[in-house]
This record gives sequence, structure tokens and C-alpha cells, in this order.
Amino acid sequence: MIRHLLSGADLDAGTATLVLDTAAEMATVAGREVKKLPALRGRTVVNLFYEDSTRTRISFEAAAKRLSADVINFSAKGSSVAKGESLKDTALTLQAMGADAVVVRHPASGAPHRLAEWVDGSVVNAGDGTHEHPTQALLDAYTMRSRLGRLDGLHVAIVGDVLHSRVARSNVLLLSTLGAKVTLVGPPTLIPVDIAAALAPGTDVCYDLDAVLPDVDVVMMLRVQRERMGDSYFPSAREYARRYGLDGPRMRRLPGHAIVMHPGPMNRGMEITPEVADSPRSTIVEQVANGVSVRMAVLYLLLGGNNR
Amino acid sequence: MIRHLLSGADLDAGTATLVLDTAAEMATVAGREVKKLPALRGRTVVNLFYEDSTRTRISFEAAAKRLSADVINFSAKGSSVAKGESLKDTALTLQAMGADAVVVRHPASGAPHRLAEWVDGSVVNAGDGTHEHPTQALLDAYTMRSRLGRLDGLHVAIVGDVLHSRVARSNVLLLSTLGAKVTLVGPPTLIPVDIAAALAPGTDVCYDLDAVLPDVDVVMMLRVQRERMGDSYFPSAREYARRYGLDGPRMRRLPGHAIVMHPGPMNRGMEITPEVADSPRSTIVEQVANGVSVRMAVLYLLLGGNNR
Amino acid sequence: MIRHLLSGADLDAGTATLVLDTAAEMATVAGREVKKLPALRGRTVVNLFYEDSTRTRISFEAAAKRLSADVINFSAKGSSVAKGESLKDTALTLQAMGADAVVVRHPASGAPHRLAEWVDGSVVNAGDGTHEHPTQALLDAYTMRSRLGRLDGLHVAIVGDVLHSRVARSNVLLLSTLGAKVTLVGPPTLIPVDIAAALAPGTDVCYDLDAVLPDVDVVMMLRVQRERMGDSYFPSAREYARRYGLDGPRMRRLPGHAIVMHPGPMNRGMEITPEVADSPRSTIVEQVANGVSVRMAVLYLLLGGNNR
Repeated sequence: MIRHLLSGADLDAGTATLVLDTAAEMATVAGREVKKLPALRGRTVVNLFYEDSTRTRISFEAAAKRLSADVINFSAKGSSVAKGESLKDTALTLQAMGADAVVVRHPASGAPHRLAEWVDGSVVNAGDGTHEHPTQALLDAYTMRSRLGRLDGLHVAIVGDVLHSRVARSNVLLLSTLGAKVTLVGPPTLIPVDIAAALAPGTDVCYDLDAVLPDVDVVMMLRVQRERMGDSYFPSAREYARRYGLDGPRMRRLPGHAIVMHPGPMNRGMEITPEVADSPRSTIVEQVANGVSVRMAVLYLLLGGNNR
Repeated sequence: MIRHLLSGADLDAGTATLVLDTAAEMATVAGREVKKLPALRGRTVVNLFYEDSTRTRISFEAAAKRLSADVINFSAKGSSVAKGESLKDTALTLQAMGADAVVVRHPASGAPHRLAEWVDGSVVNAGDGTHEHPTQALLDAYTMRSRLGRLDGLHVAIVGDVLHSRVARSNVLLLSTLGAKVTLVGPPTLIPVDIAAALAPGTDVCYDLDAVLPDVDVVMMLRVQRERMGDSYFPSAREYARRYGLDGPRMRRLPGHAIVMHPGPMNRGMEITPEVADSPRSTIVEQVANGVSVRMAVLYLLLGGNNR
Repeated sequence: MIRHLLSGADLDAGTATLVLDTAAEMATVAGREVKKLPALRGRTVVNLFYEDSTRTRISFEAAAKRLSADVINFSAKGSSVAKGESLKDTALTLQAMGADAVVVRHPASGAPHRLAEWVDGSVVNAGDGTHEHPTQALLDAYTMRSRLGRLDGLHVAIVGDVLHSRVARSNVLLLSTLGAKVTLVGPPTLIPVDIAAALAPGTDVCYDLDAVLPDVDVVMMLRVQRERMGDSYFPSAREYARRYGLDGPRMRRLPGHAIVMHPGPMNRGMEITPEVADSPRSTIVEQVANGVSVRMAVLYLLLGGNNR
């Protein structure tokens, strides 16, 4: 097993499959009388968040606590970081305090990689700038496999602001490792011609959502950053929804077995309509539940797996 | 036992008494060598706070931890809520993450009721707008019963800004269920003529604090919202204190056995003077301690009671 | 053992040595398979922070959790404190909720002492204004003893803004109790002539860092408060670094065995250069690790030691 989880590219097919299989075992814990495993008792997981992300923080916190680890939340706001402490000194401090794993969310792409150079413990990238969010990709893969029975040979459309999306990037890397085919869909300004090939060979690009829908097993809608609306990348909100939003009529053009995914939080009415979000095809709530299982698996394998 | 605790009216006399009796057992845990019960091990309690309320959050957190539950604090500030996530999507997310109970504080009256429609777990209303705060009413009832030996037949004056007080509302509902008689006291602008009857038959209204004092077993002072001072509802601070503040001379007009309550935090010198707050009649510190026992009882009965 | 830890002066030589010896035992927990002791199971430690200090809060949180205590974080921001609740009422509230220990950081010098008058539990001063920070002094003493084998007879230079430093104050008090000799070094405006003698007899003052270096076993650099730069106390940043900053050439004038300390977070390039901070003489990362062990020892002795 690897020591850190920084990128969707860190995982070869065997390791990724081990994470997904372990997550499936972890999911059974939720059904037990005592929904807790002693696996990480005495281990300390630090959530080091330089950006607010309550959903992701809570998911890791729930995962770590279900494995009996101690969790310490470190929000960079109002901390020594605000007094100008460098990332390196923060890292050394957390390690000296006994952090066995640091789960880091950072606005700068690459920050988790730097952190990993400085600490002896494990680093989990919980989102770095526009770069990567590998546990999101793992939970997405877990969800696809659990709904559709396999990953190899699936056709997945990732729709929206691909250029700025760490979710898209990590998914492309992981899905290609696991044998799925990805088509990136969105406005041309948000999918530069060379991005697909640069990420993974065989990744396609299409600017026409309607053309792609009849042919995919999975549609993954990305969250629109409203604050980017109206700048040079984005058409207006209305225009965006018209061209790239997933509504009922579009959903009905999908094959019968196809599923609809979204990493949340949704802009209902923008990239996805309530009819789609709440339909049986939608896996959005399952993705959240699977997120806890996948993060349990990652923490278990990084911190505890070698001892067992 | 009920599944949610949303309103003082959710509890019939038998259930309310069960909660108070269970709280009395929980209170004995504080005297043990290890002040902890294993009852809720593996259960997850989420404190979902859309408003700051450190006292209430800490009380629930202490209660849950004393029952060995895992606690996750979710402050809506700077969370996906701030990114426009709906209450429903937040609810579904928390449930998917495995929250067995959601303790919710929300500025909008009725928000916990809506939450309860969406989740399979239990919802505890920790204060919704000007509407209700049922665990406060339970801890108040517990305190009265523990000091005065009974609730049936007690005469309780609730004094202050009744119109905007969720504490008053929940107390009126619960106390009438448990056989106590309530008189609401305060400026006419803050006690509309029909509010008392609308809440519970038999509830009286009086605008003259001094007239009520000799006849009550309990005086419950409400916190004055200073930010309302000077608007159309409120006289000036000085005028308010003169007419509805509880000071030493007024306290001495109470019957010898009567007690003085306040939900905290107090405005010393406004609705209550330090002499009264720190007198042996005051139950203010006991109320805080009882709050932990009552919340332990509520969480235990909602989450664990059926299994035992 | 004492009930509270408010000042470096609270500890006589025997008690201080007991804390350091206990910390040495606690440090062995970090090497175990399960890095946790059951000593404080069922005890509640409240971190009551009126100022942000993530490092100190996390260190206490990690220490308490490693002893199996429940930890509740109370940040005064946005709490009832912000609604005007007095320190006394907050103290009584925390005690009523069952806090066995309150770890308090407060901007007002003396606040922890007042708190200690009001609560039955133990109070640990985690920094009060410009006054004291006794666990920092203990971890510094622990670090010196562990690196140099003794405290008695050591010569320690404390360098920088002594006037405003609670770290300096607590260190002077504790080190003199333990037989070390302290020389305070810094600009005359920051070391009033009478401060040294007032703190502890035998404490020297010197305004020339270069003159002191060849003669000391320990150089402890204080953090510069940049916000004070340019006011009447402080020369410019550049001038400060030139006269009182520790750089490579200065470090090489120290005796071969001498160590360099800093409480963190550092202003690299201001009071200390990266070359010095990252050199083998630097104990900065060890200090952080020792902080957890020392705080474990303090909590253990205050809360659990008497029962065993």
C-alpha cells in the first residue's frame, strides 16, 4: 500500500481495487449494532483545512471516528497560519504533536505534495486548488461499481467546468486506470483542446451534451462556481443551464441503466434540476454515504493496514 | 417513546415524566468514578448549528460524549450552507454520513420540523427562531421538580419578552401538560392578549410583576434581547428593569419556598440583579447541570432506549 | 500536587520535577502500539479560548485525548461571551456542565486566577495576556533537561521582547526555581531595569546578544510581534534582526553543546534565520512534541494523580 494519497494517479489498478474492496467491507460496519471498529484506536488524524469545506471535513471526521481514531480539527483561519507560519512549520508542528495522518484541504495546487515531503505520517489530499481530490474520485468509482457492477468498459461523461475542477481531474486519472472511458463535456473555454490527452490517453472531449447522452453509462455533473459566471470562461447562468444543465428531458435520453452523479453541494436549477437530482437514477446521496466508507478504507489502509 | 423532540407539545405527561425520571438516573453518572455510560457507543450525534449558541452546543456535546456517542459539530458558517445548499440537501448529506441524531439550532421557526421529514434518524430541536426550545423546558421542569418535589399544581410566573421567547413557549406547553399553572408577566406589547390561551388553556396573563410575586412557587426570568430595546415592543432598558427586573426587594416578596430561574446567559442588572442571581433561591447553575442530564436522557431515549 | 496551574511560580522544585518526570513517562506512550492511556476516561477537559491559538489548543487537545478524556472546545468568538456573559458566569456554566479541568487562554492578565476562584475543578493557564504561560515553561524545561541532562546550573539567555512575553516570564520563574541562571537579552526599551530582579533574584540583564552567546548553554529566542514594530518599544524590523536576530555566524559563537529554542510560531528571517531554525542545535520541533507530553503530565497530575 502507498503511504500518502495525493493524486488519482497514485493508485494503480490493484491498489485502487483494494481500496474499493476495503470500502465495501467498511460499509458493512454501518449495519452493525455498534457502528465502530477498533482498528485505529490511539491513532490521531488531523483535519488541516485552509479552506472551509464542512462536507469533506465531516466525512473524514466520521470515517476516522468510526475507526476509533482521535480526530483534531485544525482550521487555518485565526491560527498561527494567519500569523504567517509557513506550511512547512505547520507540518512539522502537527507531526511533532503525533499526527499519524494529516488530511489537508488547501487553495494552492500541490500543497499536499509539499506537506508529504516534510512529515513522516500519511498525507491525504482532501482537495488542493483546481488540482486533485482523489478520495472524491474513489467514492465516485465505488458508487459506479456498486450501481453498475463494474468499472472496466464503462463510458462516463464528466460535464461542466472541467478546467477548474479537481473532481474532474482526479476522476479522469482514476477511471482511466480502472478501465473506464471518459468523455469531457462543457463549453470550449472550459475544456482546452489538450487537457484530455494530457490527463489520460483515450479521454475524449465533446462540446455537445445532447450528442453524448444516449451513449453513456454515467453522467457526472460538476458543480458550477457561480462566482465565475459572467467572466471570460463562462456563459451566463441561463445560457449555461440551457446548454449544459441536466434536466428531465435530457435525463430521459440516457440509456435505461445509466446513472447521474454529482459531488455536491448542488446548485439545483443550474447544472441539475430537482427532478433529476431526486430521481432514482441519481446517486447523489449514495455518494455521500460511500464517501465515509471510502475514507475509512483509505485511512485504514494508510495507517493500520500494514500492522494487520 | 417518540422519534423526534421538536416541541414541548410532543410529550404527553407519561413520556415527559419518563424523560425526567431517566434524567435523574443520568445525573447519578456524574458521581461515578468513570463519568461515562457505554449506551450510545458507535452512534453519531451531529450538532447542526445555523446560529451560534456555544452553551447549548456544549451541553449537548457533553451529554452525547458522556453516553459514549461520537459527536460531530457542524457550524453552518463558512460551510456548504454558505454556498447556498438547501436545508434538505444538508439533511440528506448528514443522514447519508450516518448521523443517528441531528441536534439543530436554526433561526427559522419550524426548520427542525422540516428536517424531521427528510431524515430517518432522530431530530432534536435545540431552538428554532422564536418558536420552541423543548430541552430547555425539560431541564426547567426537572429543576422545579428536583427543588420543589412536584410539578402538578405548581404556580409558575414566566417574566419578560414572552412574544419572542422560545423558552417561554416550550415551557408553557410542557408545564401545562405536567399540571403546573403558568402566569405570563411582561409589558403588554410583548404578551398579546390571545397568546396565553392559544398556547395552553388555563394560562394567565398579568402585566404587574409585583402583584404576582406573593402567589408563585417559581419565577422564571427570561433573557432580555438588548438589541430589541428601544423599538416598539420594548420600553427603555432602565424602565424595563424598574418594572420587570427581579431585584432583592422583589425577591423578598416571594413565598419562602419559591425559586428563581433563568435560562442564561443573564444580563445582570437588567432582568435580574446579582443579589438575586447569586442567592440560594436561584437555580441558575443547577439548571445548567440539569441540562446535561436531561439531554443525556433525551438522546438515550431517542437513540438507545428501544434496544434495551 | 497543586490543584491549578496558573503560574510558573506555583511549582516548587519538587513539584516541577514531578511534572517533568511524569512527562518523561508520558512520552513513552507515543511509542506504544496503542498510543493512549485510560487514565482520564470519563473526565471532561474544556479548552476555553478567548484568543485564537490553534497550536496551544491542539496540543492540549491531543494530550487530553491521549489520556482518554473527553475534550470540548469553547471558542469565545460568537458565543454567549459575545452576548456579554461575564467570565464568572461562563466559569460557573462550564463547571455545572461537568468540566473537570478548564484550560484557559485569555487576553487579560490574571483572568485564569479569577477563574480558579470560581470553579471546583482545575484551571490550567494556557496564556493570559502578557503575564504567564506556565506549560510553555515546563515544556521548555523538559526540553533543556532532556537535551543537556540537567537544569541546575544551566545558563539560559532569553532574547527578545521580554516585556510583553508571557513565555519569558513563566520561564524566568520556573528556571530560577529549578536552579538555572537566566540572562534577559533585548533592546533596553523591552527590558526595564527592574523587571529581572522583580521576577527572580539572580536574573541578569544584557543588551548585547553577542556578548552573551559564548557563555550560555541555552538561547531561547522569543517571537517578535511584528505588529509592535515601529512603535516606541521596537526598532525597525531590519534593525531588530541585525542586533537581536540569531543567524548562522552568531550561532557558531555558542559553546559546542548549546541549544537553540523557540516557542513558535517563528518569524523566519526576523528573530531567527532558517539556517539556525533547521540546524541540529535547534530544539524547536522537539519542543512541540514535548509540549504534548508535558500537558499530559499536567492534566494527569491535576485530575487523576490523587486517585491512583
